[in-house]
Amino acid sequence: MNIFQKTISLPPFGRGFHLITSIIQREFPELRNIRVGLLHIFIKHTSASLTINENADPTVRRDFESHFNKMIPANMPYYQHNDEGPDDMPAHLKSSVLGSSVTIPITDGRLNLGTWQGIYLCEHRDHPTSRKLVLTAYGLPK
Amino acid sequence: MNIFQKTISLPPFGRGFHLITSIIQREFPELRNIRVGLLHIFIKHTSASLTINENADPTVRRDFESHFNKMIPANMPYYQHNDEGPDDMPAHLKSSVLGSSVTIPITDGRLNLGTWQGIYLCEHRDHPTSRKLVLTAYGLPK
Amino acid sequence: MNIFQKTISLPPFGRGFHLITSIIQREFPELRNIRVGLLHIFIKHTSASLTINENADPTVRRDFESHFNKMIPANMPYYQHNDEGPDDMPAHLKSSVLGSSVTIPITDGRLNLGTWQGIYLCEHRDHPTSRKLVLTAYGLPK
Repeated sequence: MNIFQKTISLPPFGRGFHLITSIIQREFPELRNIRVGLLHIFIKHTSASLTINENADPTVRRDFESHFNKMIPANMPYYQHNDEGPDDMPAHLKSSVLGSSVTIPITDGRLNLGTWQGIYLCEHRDHPTSRKLVLTAYGLPK
Repeated sequence: MNIFQKTISLPPFGRGFHLITSIIQREFPELRNIRVGLLHIFIKHTSASLTINENADPTVRRDFESHFNKMIPANMPYYQHNDEGPDDMPAHLKSSVLGSSVTIPITDGRLNLGTWQGIYLCEHRDHPTSRKLVLTAYGLPK
Repeated sequence: MNIFQKTISLPPFGRGFHLITSIIQREFPELRNIRVGLLHIFIKHTSASLTINENADPTVRRDFESHFNKMIPANMPYYQHNDEGPDDMPAHLKSSVLGSSVTIPITDGRLNLGTWQGIYLCEHRDHPTSRKLVLTAYGLPK
């Protein structure tokens, strides 16, 4: 088995849900060397997260932002962690509901995603900042 | 280390939460060849998902369906992605809250689940369709 | 590639969200032997879960408990699974929303977490019990 690991920095994205599949593929060409294996993507932050969802219609990503703001609202009276602004505590909660990593099969050197699946960066803070990802691909070599 | 990968198609399940542990074990006998390792199960869809939960009482799975329908309702006024029916956008949201993969330890050729743990297929669409899973098991051979 | 697997029992924690990063590091020194790889942590229960979030301010963990109790309340009229007490069905739901495992990169024998990231045990039951974790670390040896 081979293993490749690399840290990349994403460009700053505004608050919301963003497709990053093509960035991952471009920044991590090592995954083409794996015939059968897995790619693990980890985000090193607690106010942004990763998920896999629909890759075609931008209204899906907008509805994600709307619904997550309803399910995990700002300014709840019971929030005690308010020092870093009203977007901070909801960002922590959203990040744990969505998760800090995704794992995707690799088959014949390519991500074995479904036709409609893409990788989302979920940016939960108002102020865009660069986010660091650790990419780890492993499996049998081509 | 050994690695095995296989794509399987589940039979169509109705909307709701369904135990699929025994299907996985039957369709992927390769995992018996692993002494110490992990099984990754990935669903290639964005309106169905996977999780691990209670494997005994069917009311738990019914309560999952009831509560997810409350936490992520249909017909919210802010949904813009409505073209594919009222069950579609909630299905995408549920699928990201629950997740598109689970990873389970393998020990002595068996899934090392807790006594009460089972693997759920979470079908979020009204119309049953077959769902594709990519199974990847890896670790030290027996 | 090397692989190490070990089952550990956590001390009983009260209902709420608890940092366990240092327990994992202390109980699983094998991960120091991995130069490039991953650590998978799996909880063998369906009423407690694992997540990664902010490791510094205890109010974040308290706000997690408050918000999860609002998002997934006790005593909902549609719950049919009530035999094991009002905290039981919400515990199952919370455990699937948060997840039963986390996977973290290992780099140079250390968990490659972000500065503010820690591993949380999320205890959803009222009565504290010991929880079992299966730790699996794999990758290239140092």
